[in-house]
Amino acid sequence: MTLDPARLDMPLGEVIFSQRSIRRFRPDPISADDLQLILEAAVKAPSGGNRQPARFLVLNDPELIRQFGALYREAWWAKRRDENRPWTRREEIPPEDRGSASAARLADEIKDAPCIVLALSTGKGQASSVIPSVQNLLLAARALGIGSVPTTIHPQVQERVYRLLDIPPEMEFHQCIPLGYPRGRFGSTRRRGSAEVACMNRWGAPVPWAREEAALPK
Amino acid sequence: MTLDPARLDMPLGEVIFSQRSIRRFRPDPISADDLQLILEAAVKAPSGGNRQPARFLVLNDPELIRQFGALYREAWWAKRRDENRPWTRREEIPPEDRGSASAARLADEIKDAPCIVLALSTGKGQASSVIPSVQNLLLAARALGIGSVPTTIHPQVQERVYRLLDIPPEMEFHQCIPLGYPRGRFGSTRRRGSAEVACMNRWGAPVPWAREEAALPK
Repeated sequence: MTLDPARLDMPLGEVIFSQRSIRRFRPDPISADDLQLILEAAVKAPSGGNRQPARFLVLNDPELIRQFGALYREAWWAKRRDENRPWTRREEIPPEDRGSASAARLADEIKDAPCIVLALSTGKGQASSVIPSVQNLLLAARALGIGSVPTTIHPQVQERVYRLLDIPPEMEFHQCIPLGYPRGRFGSTRRRGSAEVACMNRWGAPVPWAREEAALPK
Repeated sequence: MTLDPARLDMPLGEVIFSQRSIRRFRPDPISADDLQLILEAAVKAPSGGNRQPARFLVLNDPELIRQFGALYREAWWAKRRDENRPWTRREEIPPEDRGSASAARLADEIKDAPCIVLALSTGKGQASSVIPSVQNLLLAARALGIGSVPTTIHPQVQERVYRLLDIPPEMEFHQCIPLGYPRGRFGSTRRRGSAEVACMNRWGAPVPWAREEAALPK
């Protein structure tokens, strides 16, 4: 095993401006060297008082991922029910709701992902000390050509997930991140420009790079 | 104003493995081009359902930063009181507690920072859709040679901060990030290795790159 940070040689701008959620994966495994590099990048992120409460559980055992995938799928549909979306099958999702269609397909297919990382923390209320690590993880994966998407799981299945993976109950779950080489073609992200979501010195005052015709922060 | 992502040309590995919290700043201003690039990097981060609830308020007006700094300082000491740390002045902080000493100095000096970014969100419970943007912001700043540190403010001053900056009450505050060129010398971060905080397939099972003598995840 060798840890070689120089392998993350993609320029930061290219990584950040091309990083996007990937929900379709090829079955090819992620090498242990790549996993180590991705996780070392994750632990470098800041945490409150440098207490480093983030913990990572990496799944790459196919049978375990299949079992986890069944729970993930149940959780995904439970969340639709909570959101009062009256769908019970993928075919009922309106085709124009591409985000939900894509997330529903992931819920079906995550059981075949080559790798899944669960991000947890020792102690409660630590999101701002765990999520930065997850973002580093997503960026490092992107720089290695590995796709990822941050997802959650519904409380309905949490206890069973903890039991399946021997996770101590005092650990707080934050995110579930499947990893794999992308399958198919993906475009770039669609995001608002910073001038639409940033203001200067007082709320609602435009940033210097806002064009007059651009929408101001709302 | 020109947005040139190619200026973020530092390799991702170098950025992530050298990024660290900076709490002492030179007074030199941050250019609007740099601010735009940093904020465009921020908005590229993922958010739940791509709803993009993150909002940024950038302060670079010295008088406003002075006023905000006074509230930040009050908030920092209020937090010590909450934590039952019996200090009322910087001189009382044990010298071996370098983290607290450094944070206390920031509380005194933040009023002179050339720039402060507040990260907020529309709606509550959006930390996992805001903090990834903040991490992108820290990394982009690092790649431009600009120091930063994610901090919070104590509820005791929040209403006054909102009033000072005209922030609508429905916005949720997440983090306060001073930005500036580093003053003085800084070493690298001290973080646990990933083998100490990651496990494989079941809680407590070592990752393949864990040396036998290394501590297992706790």
